[in-house]
Formats: sequence, C-alpha cells, structure tokens
Amino acid sequence: MASEKTVGVLGGGQLGRMLVEAANLLEIRVNFLDAPGSSAKQVSAHEGHVDGSFKRREAIQELANRSDVVTVEIEHVDTYMLEEIANEGHDVQPSWKTIRTIQDKYDQKWHLKKFGVATTESLALEENTVKQLEKISGELGLPLMLKSKKDAYDGRGNYAIKTKTDFKPALDVLGAKGELYAEKWANFRMELAVMVVKTKDGVFSFPTVETLHEDSICKLTYAPARGVSKEINKKAQELAKQAVSCFWGKGVFGVEMFLLMNDELLINEIAPRPHNSGHYTIEGCPISQYEAHLRAILDLPLAQEDLELREPSIMLNILGGEAPDSHLLVARKALEQRRTKIHLYGKGEARKGRKMGHITVCAPTMSQAERLIQPMIDFVDRDKPKPSFTLSRTTSTTTSNTTNTPAEPTAQTPEPLVAVIMGSDSDLPVLQPGLEMLKKFSIPFTVRITSAHRTPNWMAEFASTAPTTYPSLRAIIAAAGGAAHLPGMAAAYTPLPVIGVPVKPSIGDGMDSLLSICNMPRGVPVATVSINNSVNAALLATRIIGSSDVEIRGKYEQYMQDSMNEVRGKDETLARMGYEQYAVEFLSKK
Amino acid sequence: MASEKTVGVLGGGQLGRMLVEAANLLEIRVNFLDAPGSSAKQVSAHEGHVDGSFKRREAIQELANRSDVVTVEIEHVDTYMLEEIANEGHDVQPSWKTIRTIQDKYDQKWHLKKFGVATTESLALEENTVKQLEKISGELGLPLMLKSKKDAYDGRGNYAIKTKTDFKPALDVLGAKGELYAEKWANFRMELAVMVVKTKDGVFSFPTVETLHEDSICKLTYAPARGVSKEINKKAQELAKQAVSCFWGKGVFGVEMFLLMNDELLINEIAPRPHNSGHYTIEGCPISQYEAHLRAILDLPLAQEDLELREPSIMLNILGGEAPDSHLLVARKALEQRRTKIHLYGKGEARKGRKMGHITVCAPTMSQAERLIQPMIDFVDRDKPKPSFTLSRTTSTTTSNTTNTPAEPTAQTPEPLVAVIMGSDSDLPVLQPGLEMLKKFSIPFTVRITSAHRTPNWMAEFASTAPTTYPSLRAIIAAAGGAAHLPGMAAAYTPLPVIGVPVKPSIGDGMDSLLSICNMPRGVPVATVSINNSVNAALLATRIIGSSDVEIRGKYEQYMQDSMNEVRGKDETLARMGYEQYAVEFLSKK
Repeated sequence: MASEKTVGVLGGGQLGRMLVEAANLLEIRVNFLDAPGSSAKQVSAHEGHVDGSFKRREAIQELANRSDVVTVEIEHVDTYMLEEIANEGHDVQPSWKTIRTIQDKYDQKWHLKKFGVATTESLALEENTVKQLEKISGELGLPLMLKSKKDAYDGRGNYAIKTKTDFKPALDVLGAKGELYAEKWANFRMELAVMVVKTKDGVFSFPTVETLHEDSICKLTYAPARGVSKEINKKAQELAKQAVSCFWGKGVFGVEMFLLMNDELLINEIAPRPHNSGHYTIEGCPISQYEAHLRAILDLPLAQEDLELREPSIMLNILGGEAPDSHLLVARKALEQRRTKIHLYGKGEARKGRKMGHITVCAPTMSQAERLIQPMIDFVDRDKPKPSFTLSRTTSTTTSNTTNTPAEPTAQTPEPLVAVIMGSDSDLPVLQPGLEMLKKFSIPFTVRITSAHRTPNWMAEFASTAPTTYPSLRAIIAAAGGAAHLPGMAAAYTPLPVIGVPVKPSIGDGMDSLLSICNMPRGVPVATVSINNSVNAALLATRIIGSSDVEIRGKYEQYMQDSMNEVRGKDETLARMGYEQYAVEFLSKK
Repeated sequence: MASEKTVGVLGGGQLGRMLVEAANLLEIRVNFLDAPGSSAKQVSAHEGHVDGSFKRREAIQELANRSDVVTVEIEHVDTYMLEEIANEGHDVQPSWKTIRTIQDKYDQKWHLKKFGVATTESLALEENTVKQLEKISGELGLPLMLKSKKDAYDGRGNYAIKTKTDFKPALDVLGAKGELYAEKWANFRMELAVMVVKTKDGVFSFPTVETLHEDSICKLTYAPARGVSKEINKKAQELAKQAVSCFWGKGVFGVEMFLLMNDELLINEIAPRPHNSGHYTIEGCPISQYEAHLRAILDLPLAQEDLELREPSIMLNILGGEAPDSHLLVARKALEQRRTKIHLYGKGEARKGRKMGHITVCAPTMSQAERLIQPMIDFVDRDKPKPSFTLSRTTSTTTSNTTNTPAEPTAQTPEPLVAVIMGSDSDLPVLQPGLEMLKKFSIPFTVRITSAHRTPNWMAEFASTAPTTYPSLRAIIAAAGGAAHLPGMAAAYTPLPVIGVPVKPSIGDGMDSLLSICNMPRGVPVATVSINNSVNAALLATRIIGSSDVEIRGKYEQYMQDSMNEVRGKDETLARMGYEQYAVEFLSKK
C-alpha cells in the first residue's frame, strides 16, 4: 500500500465511490459509514465498513475507531460529533471547524468576508417576515437571492426574488426551512469553479472550469473555461486558493464563483470535499480530485504539475429522468458515441434530477470536444421545449426561480485557431482567398483591423493579449502593404507564430512590402509568404496546426493529394488533346 | 447498468481487477472465480463471486450458471471444461477453441501458419533428446529458441540455445516440462505489441507499442513505438488484426511481434485476453483494453476512434523485488514523481519478479514522457550493475538466456522536433547560429544535407518520409542559396510547415535566394525569413512548437522578456553615460 493509514469516510455516495476507486489503485484502505450496498461500498470489498446512517453517533465513533483519518464526502454531517472524536485524538480532515463554518452558508460568507475574500454581499434575516425582506431589499436592492442558511444544495433552499410581490411566495417556500439570509444579486456573465487542494505543504489548484447549470443543478463543466482570458483564469485560481486558505485542515475543496460583467470575481459557494465540477479531473488531469484528496489528507506528495489539464475536457451529468431507467438510456446512447468515458454510480433506483452518473469527453482541442459531446447534449435535451431564438437567457425555458441566471447569452462560437489581422480594410480583398482556404479546412478564425500606424495601442493590445483572449490560437496571419510594419510589430508583441502577407500597394510592385515584412532583425521572426499570396499564408497556418493535430494533418495530406490529382488530370488532358487544342479549350476561357 | 448481462471470469488477478474497475464504471456485474480476497474481488463487493480454484470443474460450472457470458483473464485454463459448458449452451468468449489453440504455443504457430500469417518458423521435438535437437538445429540453424509448448509465460519455459553445447543444459532445464518445440532465431531490432479487439462487427486495434523486456519479463511499453515509421506502425496493426481474425469468438487479444532488421514483422505470441502491453490504454486511450473487452464480449458499441492514442504514454511495471516491500518502495518513489499514475494490484506478499503493479506516464510529447519516467527507471535499476558503454545489447548485463535479444542497440536519442536541411554543406555556417538557438531552447533537432539539384531523389525521399521517420517532427528548416529550390521542393513533398532561410551566395546580395524561396505558387507555402537569418528560422520553429506546447511557449515568453530587458538595460546605460561615451565603451569593441 502507498500509505499504511486507513481512511474513514462519512457517507458512501458517488463521491465516496470515485474516492475509493482512486484509493484502490494505491492499495489505500477506505472504510465507509453508510447503508449496506451503498454506491461506494459496492467497489470496496472488505470487513472495515460500518453500516448505518452517517448521522448516528455510535456509528461515527465506530468508524473513527477503525480509521486513522476521518473525512467526509458530504458536508451535511453532525460537526459536534466530529468535534468530539477530534478531541478524543482522532485525525479529522478537513477540520470539523471548516465543515461547521461552511455548512451554514451565511457563516461561510461571513468567514470569507472576515478574511477579505471577495464574495457576494449577504445579510441575515432576523425573522422570516415580509417586513424584514422589505428592510433588507432596501439595503441590497432588487432582485436578490433568498437562501436557507443550512442543508441547501442543487438550488434547493434558494429563491430568486425579483420584485416585492415575490416576498410572500418566497417566504412560503423557504420560511419553514429554518434561518434565512439574503444575497445581493450577482449580475454574472459566467459561472466558474476551481478545485483547490490544501495539503500540509501548501495550497494548489486544478484549472478554472466553466459550469453550466440547469434547473439549478450542474449540467455541464468545460475545462478550461471557454472564452476566458489567461488572466481571469489565473485570478480565479488565486481567489479560490485564497478562499480555501482561510479554512482549517487538509483536503480538496470545490470553489464556485461568479464572473461578473466587469470581469470581477465573487465567491459563490465552497464545498469542503470533492465536487461535481471536478469529475472531469479523472480523465482530464494526471491526478484526479479524488486522488488529490487522498494525498492531501494522508500527507502523500503532491505538486501543482499533477493538477494541470492534459486535454480540454467536457463533463455532462447523467440525471434521473421521468422514467426509472431514463438515465440508462443516456448511458446507452453514450456507448454509441466516440471517445466518451461513462461513469455510472450504482445508485439503483433513479429519481428525477438525482445524479446517477456522468460522462466525460477529452479531445486535443475544445472545439473537437464540443463536437463530440453535442449529440449527448441533444439527447438529454430531446424532450425539452426548444428555446426560442432570443438573445436573453433570462427568458429561456430552462430558467428556474431558484438560481441566479447569467445576465447575457454566452453564445458559443468555435474558438479561433487563427487570427487574421490587417492594417487597413483595403487589405481585405487580398486576404479573402486565404480566408476561403481556412474555411475549406474548417479552421475557425477571427478577422480584425489593427493598424500599426493608426492604432498602435490597439495593435499592441491585440497582439500581446491574443494568446490569452483566444487560448486556442495557433497562429496569426498579418497582411500589410508599403512600409508594412504590422506583421513585424505583431511578432514583437506575441510569442505565437506570425505569418506575414505582403500586400501590393496601388503604386509599385510590392517588393517594398515584401522586404519590410521579411527582413526582420535577428530575434523576431516573421514567416513571410509571397506578395498577395494569402492562400499560402492560410496553408502555412494549416500546416502549423496540422503539425500537432492529426485531424488537420490528414485533411492537409488529402489537399496535397487532390492538388496532385488535379495537375495529373490536366497533364493527361494536355497529352491527349495536344497543346494547341488545350490552349483553345481551356486557356482562352481564363 | 449499461448491459443487463452478467460476466463470469476464470481468474481474479490483476487483469481481472482492472477489468472490473472498467465494469464498475458501467454498472456491469462481474463474477470472479478465484480464491477469496483475490486481487479482483477486492474491488467488487457482491454475492455473485465463486470461491476456489479456476481449475475446479464444479466451480467453473457454478460460475457459468451465475453468469451470462464466461471469459478468462488467463489462458492456462482447462479448455475441456469450457467446451463442456459451451456445449451446455453457455456463452464462452473468446471460444474455448481459441484458448485451446493458443495455450499450446506450437499449435498457435501452426494455426497462424495455416492461415498465412507471418510468424516465427517452428518445429516440434518428437522426443526431448540431444539427437532431436541436432536434427532440428540442422533445419532451423543456430542459435534457436527451445520452448515448452504449454504453461510458459514471462520467459519461463524458454531457453536460448546458442551453440551445440547448450543442447544438454537446455534439455536439463526444460526436458521435464512436457512437450517442447524449437523456434528459428528472430534477429529482431525491436519488439512490438498491438492490442486487438474482436467484436461481433469486426476487428479493431489499439496503437502499435514498443515493448522492452528484462529478464524475459515486460518492463516498459512505449506508445507509440519510438522511431517506427507510420507504415510499419500500420503494418503491425494489420498483421495483428489478421492474426486475431483467425481465431474464434470475441474479446481483446494481445499480439506480440518482432520487427526484424529488414523491417519484416513476425508474430511472436498471442494472448487471448487483456495483456500487460495494453495497460497504458487506461490513461492513454479514450477507452481502455478492459472496457474494450467488456464491450466486445457483451456486444456493446465500439469503434476504431475509441482506441486511438490521446497522448504518448509510457508504462513501467512494478515487480516484486528482493525484499517483500521492494515494490512499495517503487510505488512511494512514484508518488514523488510528477504526472505519474500508479496502479497497485492488491496482491499482498511480493515474490521476486511478480507483477505487483505498474505506473503510467502520459505527456503531450514522447520526449516529455521520457523525461518524466526516467527517474523511475533509474530507481528500479538502482541496484543493477551499470551496463558498460557498449554498442551491442547482446553483451549488456540485462541479457538473460531465456529470450531473444535485439540484434542491435536501440540507442535512444530524443526525438527531433525540427529537421534542419541544407542544399550543401557550405550552407552550414549560415545555419549554425540557428542551431545554437534551438539548443538554447533544448529543442531536439536533426541536421541533414539533401540537395534538390544534386540528390533530387534523396531530397524527395527525406521530405516525403520525414513525418513518418520522425513522428515527433513539428517543422522543417531548409536553407539554400542562389536558385534556392530546396525549401520549396521540401514543402512540395511534406505537409509539415517548412521555413526557408535564403543564403547569400558568394556573388550577389542574396535577393535571388530570397525571392526564389518566398515567391512560391499558391498552394505550396514556405515560411520565408530574411537572408542568412537562421536565428529567426529557429525562433519561428520554436514559436510553431510553442503554439501547442506550453512548456516551450513559457520558455519563449521568457526569451522575449530577456531580450526586452537586454535592450532596456542598454537604453539605461546609454542614457546614463551619453551617446559619445557609450559609442567608445561598447561599439568600438565590436
């Protein structure tokens, strides 16, 4: 065994199951406290498990006695029992203090605020009355989110109050659920999540992912988050690490946050355990969130490098549906898809909305992963009313009253692999044949005007931020004529390969453009093609992408083959009909 | 569950364990017949398992009664019992006929030969005597391999006979092991292996991998095989599929083969089950060999695309060592390594050479994977006598008498990412600063002379086979002067990005070279840099590699930063000392 220590877990659901799947690989013994035959126990056959509810005092005591480290796969546990066993000398990770603070969402927010961590502004209700809500809405404004402090998950215990007429219905729904608090409305454009690992040596993080919720339940995660700059990605990781650093003990934490319209990040919620938004790590990263949790609580080595993304990954939850076997239809459909990894949790009977499994698709590019997952999204959405083509998500049919909704659509265009820039729109006609060629290879691109001389700052900003604005970018094509500084200046600002297209000016033969682009000083290369030859620039970009993308490489080889066949065909015709006839038939038409 | 059918497996070792790990994800029930607490049963808690030896008749009957499909994780089973239960109507996959034919290695060879599949030439001994061996060595030549027909694995049951003096010792060792046969010596340069999947719909294959054996036990597998052309890779897959097509039933098959000095491929051995050489598929492919086996025997969908490689992957076996915990030291060392996935099999007590686990490392390039695994290879080799620096492996200390050994060293230099070619060695001085720059970025490259005019065929061969000769290649740098056809001709033969360096001839300013390289027709691009500027060619290649390799991208960004700092430093000095003093201090020295 990789560790001599035995782990005891309160709860044996799907998170426990995936935890012990990781533990099995390391011969780490894990004892679960849950009902017999629970999800986790099905894949861990030994005598150390404890049967019964993880809320029972004696059972928790028994689990602690059998285990060297006690941890949880759910935060809705009795932290006073955990405190007791910790005081008896048992090792509880993360600390009961952490779990207690986090399980009360208002305390959680308050704790983060105390440590200066950016989070949604919150106010507790002194009493569950309309009068209180009137007072609080005066302070936080409307709309606002009304939330139960405890035992809330997957949107249960949340109510979005849009106008004053919602006060009464909101209290009718949540009023009986104990103490409530109100959160200022977060006008977010995207929800992000970061899995953080706290070990004895430090705080590490998995990549920033984008989460999409439906009916307040996580539906999809995209790793990395799409259309999010490197800076925001990094900032989200830093914020998540800062948040987790405020808590006691070791283990993985799921940190959910809002990315606001102004690029500000606010912590939404923290889970002191493996999290749905981290399932993708099983296939997506060298080490999964589950193995990371084990390494953290058992003081085994771990480093940031183990948590980096291997390939873009998309996770889709498989939820219980209307029929008891709806989720199995999804799983069977997934078997028919390519490059799809299926995880079923062995939870038996499905209830609508219950998490029964998930699927993960990894691919060399996010666009490929999106193409691979699309049939599955279509399948799970097959019975849903189609959303009307509206620009605002708030009117879409999937909106529920229990969660914040993004303030604007996150219309997903494929991520550009090539950025095509020009000094002036007069260069566009020269670029067009190249753009057509990129289209022919189905290579997504973006086209912009960034003049080196008339918009020097915009040019500099575009070129220097291009790799973070579009993490998918593989090359930049820059066209310019005359003094033709754009390709060279772009190359000065970016580490990406820059391909320069000399444009023939209205006066002169274009040699000025060619030499201005080609004769760069040592240290700053530009890949120069011949005058006005945007087609070759596009083909060069395609070769660059194909140098590490087998699909594109294959298409390029086909292009070479087609091009050869075309010339061979012409040669055959020429030989057959003789050059004089050929000239009449074909060349005179040109 | 993804399938309603229950699987029954004879044997519950590590292959069974990894099989059920895949089955658990799909909620497929698997019953194992093996001792209680065996490796596979540890991760599958239910009442359907059968305790006892997988050689016991009643136990096999009981397993069959409880299962819809019966399969094996080891071929050393009683095929007469399997035949019996198949005749009773039980579904046995692959067929008992397949297992019976394969478990007798001589029958296996004979069967392949009958179907015209290339395999090592073999002759059975009529009696285990020196006289027989004299006769057979007359036909097959010496050296030859003497092998037990049955129950041989990991080199046990093999004896390499080099001279006639080995006849007696060979018979002393193997003579008691039942029937023997002799194999013609295969003068191979490499051992390859392919996992093949036979389903109701067809025969599919995982990539071709390179296997390295030590003391006749598989030590390492490299996926894809290093330094093997695309053609040979494909040919190996085809041969493996052809071989498996000759057998009955469904499931995965491990096909081991020799790549001879003349690039001929010969089947060495086939295993009718998941195989050590396919462990890498767990992390390396969208679907593992284990899931593929389940899909095949349960008639679930599967396609070739699911079996493609996600990233280059290296697998290292963890074997039992001198001490009972030697293998745990290896696992603990592996925990300290980065991006390392550890698999321990739960087999308890180690014996020397027993397979206790394995580790897999995946990385975006094979060179990165090699760098990551190296400390682990060094660790498992820590007590081995260091091999002397000899060119011939046959004299190395790891050679044993129980296996064929490669005929020549497979000296591993890092795979080149860039090929640098020139029309004439007179271009080398111009290229040297560029080569130095590639070295600075630790980018492996290869340098060749391929004149377009004096060696047109060699130039064409080099350029057209470069992507298969060096699957790692990301770009070609081609230097030429005067008519300067090399870069354009290379581009005509390869789909890789070609960077052209115009070389200034002894007469003229080099504009002839520049225009000849740059002004390519539409359809065949060359990335042209300025005259003699091999440094920019190298930097452009680095940008191309960095466009999909974060490590190189990071280095390039550092290079840009350093270069900026250098100029800023000069500017500061210039401002401080004034231009006159600066010119005296710095420029006069140049």
